[in-house]
Amino acid sequence: MNCCAQVGAEAGGSAPFLTDHTTLIDSVETFIFDCDGVIWKGDSLIDGVPETLDMLRSMGKRLVFVTNNSTKSRKQYGKKFESLGLSVSAEEIFASSFAAAAYLKSMKFPTDKKVYIIGEAGIQLELKQAGINYIGGPEDGDKRIDLTPGQLMEHDHDVGAVVVGFDRYLNYYKLQYATLCIRENPGCMFIATNCDAVIHLTDAQEWAGGGSMVGAIKGSTKKEPLVVGKPSTFMMDCLASEFNIKTSQICMVGDRLDTDILFGQNGGCATLLVLSGVTTLETLQSSENKIQPDFYTNKISDLLAAKKVTTNA
Amino acid sequence: MNCCAQVGAEAGGSAPFLTDHTTLIDSVETFIFDCDGVIWKGDSLIDGVPETLDMLRSMGKRLVFVTNNSTKSRKQYGKKFESLGLSVSAEEIFASSFAAAAYLKSMKFPTDKKVYIIGEAGIQLELKQAGINYIGGPEDGDKRIDLTPGQLMEHDHDVGAVVVGFDRYLNYYKLQYATLCIRENPGCMFIATNCDAVIHLTDAQEWAGGGSMVGAIKGSTKKEPLVVGKPSTFMMDCLASEFNIKTSQICMVGDRLDTDILFGQNGGCATLLVLSGVTTLETLQSSENKIQPDFYTNKISDLLAAKKVTTNA
Repeated sequence: MNCCAQVGAEAGGSAPFLTDHTTLIDSVETFIFDCDGVIWKGDSLIDGVPETLDMLRSMGKRLVFVTNNSTKSRKQYGKKFESLGLSVSAEEIFASSFAAAAYLKSMKFPTDKKVYIIGEAGIQLELKQAGINYIGGPEDGDKRIDLTPGQLMEHDHDVGAVVVGFDRYLNYYKLQYATLCIRENPGCMFIATNCDAVIHLTDAQEWAGGGSMVGAIKGSTKKEPLVVGKPSTFMMDCLASEFNIKTSQICMVGDRLDTDILFGQNGGCATLLVLSGVTTLETLQSSENKIQPDFYTNKISDLLAAKKVTTNA
Repeated sequence: MNCCAQVGAEAGGSAPFLTDHTTLIDSVETFIFDCDGVIWKGDSLIDGVPETLDMLRSMGKRLVFVTNNSTKSRKQYGKKFESLGLSVSAEEIFASSFAAAAYLKSMKFPTDKKVYIIGEAGIQLELKQAGINYIGGPEDGDKRIDLTPGQLMEHDHDVGAVVVGFDRYLNYYKLQYATLCIRENPGCMFIATNCDAVIHLTDAQEWAGGGSMVGAIKGSTKKEPLVVGKPSTFMMDCLASEFNIKTSQICMVGDRLDTDILFGQNGGCATLLVLSGVTTLETLQSSENKIQPDFYTNKISDLLAAKKVTTNA
């Protein structure tokens, strides 16, 4: 594969396969890991992850976990890590549900205003934690519209922001409610946790992602959302500020070119693509792909080679 | 209003208010009318419509009714016209549900392939009429996905096209099914009946339209649909061919700039905007609006002025 990568690099300028693990690790102080396709796939841990994280921690590296999946809160993600045998604190996790709440907090969202949620429990929990009022979300999952002549859907004029994330209980009631708020409430913001085409709900297949729910609201409002998840750098700015680190000392590790790698590049980080998720070597090296990471490797446990070098030295 | 229009025309080059009704009517042989916002609003007929249509017919004009609303078939629209006291035959009606079926027929959609429908009964009925196999639509309206680890949604590999129209029973099952077909079935087409932001389901308010359902599938596939409804000229080509008319002898009458007026202009027709639907005079004359019809008027019954001129002459 290294050989192929070199051929690719010569032919089309594609990223090199990572061979000098030690130099990469020594050059940064923080690793940001995407979760789906890097740490786990659906409910299964990817091979060699615990040892890799242990090694990096033992080398004094700070580890941060970033996910565009907004269905869980930071705390709920902490439990997911725990259930997979990984010890990660809520403060080390930056999910797009948290990012949406952090964004609203950062721009001092008025206490007399509300958020309408298209999304799942993660967004509700993070808004609650941030002291922001909300309506919608799972509570509107069973609502139906039976149209009668002259029918009008009433909506809350105090909704000052609509937050849209992945929602497996999307329905027309929610679409119309969110559309009314954005179209009719003056200044109402349209915030997307992410625009990912697919989400790894299970490891058996890819599922239509948050981009689907966001696309639906774009289609009915003809407005573009403010995206707080990757590849927007909002989460990067958040965590750089929280940990007081420079983004040039960060390596972003992810499996998606147009979210993870672009996110790292937008933030000025070193970038490492892993092939354990959605991106294939063919896609990476295709002439149509314009996003090239600094390096690529098969999976994060390839970094364990650095340990062997250190041990042998 | 005429005065304002002239001021607008001088200031920003916006369309003139229609004053010479007779010349416009004499210059064309066919009028294409959009329905929502022109003929009716929700379930109410717009003032003066029957007399206007009667007058145009008595002057020997051909009348055609075009709608992006795919929830009904041509036949069902015929009944709607009848219920409002208007005598219009199914052959005079071009709905985007019919356009989707006509498009598939025109490109000889294989008889061993199926269409997956996100949409309502209109699309089913038109596909049936055209002899095209289909699945999905209202039948999938109550399907839920309860995720268990490792779960996989099976999909029909014979689906060769996904047709997306307005669907008040949209759910995540349909989104995932359509996404799988488009992403995984080689050559599977993605056809949109329309991308309208809003639809007049009732006359009390605007409702999130077909653009919402289409946007959801664009978001999960990152593909652009082939649009058969306005402003694409497919329906125009269809009806020009069916009635053997030249588009230069048609006047397109509609209430939306970015669908109706653009549709008329794309087809090379004369265009008349009516203010009885979604577009306000302010929008028409805004410097941000780049689509200018040949003329605008308040409602189609303004054309009755031509009768008075004829009668008085």
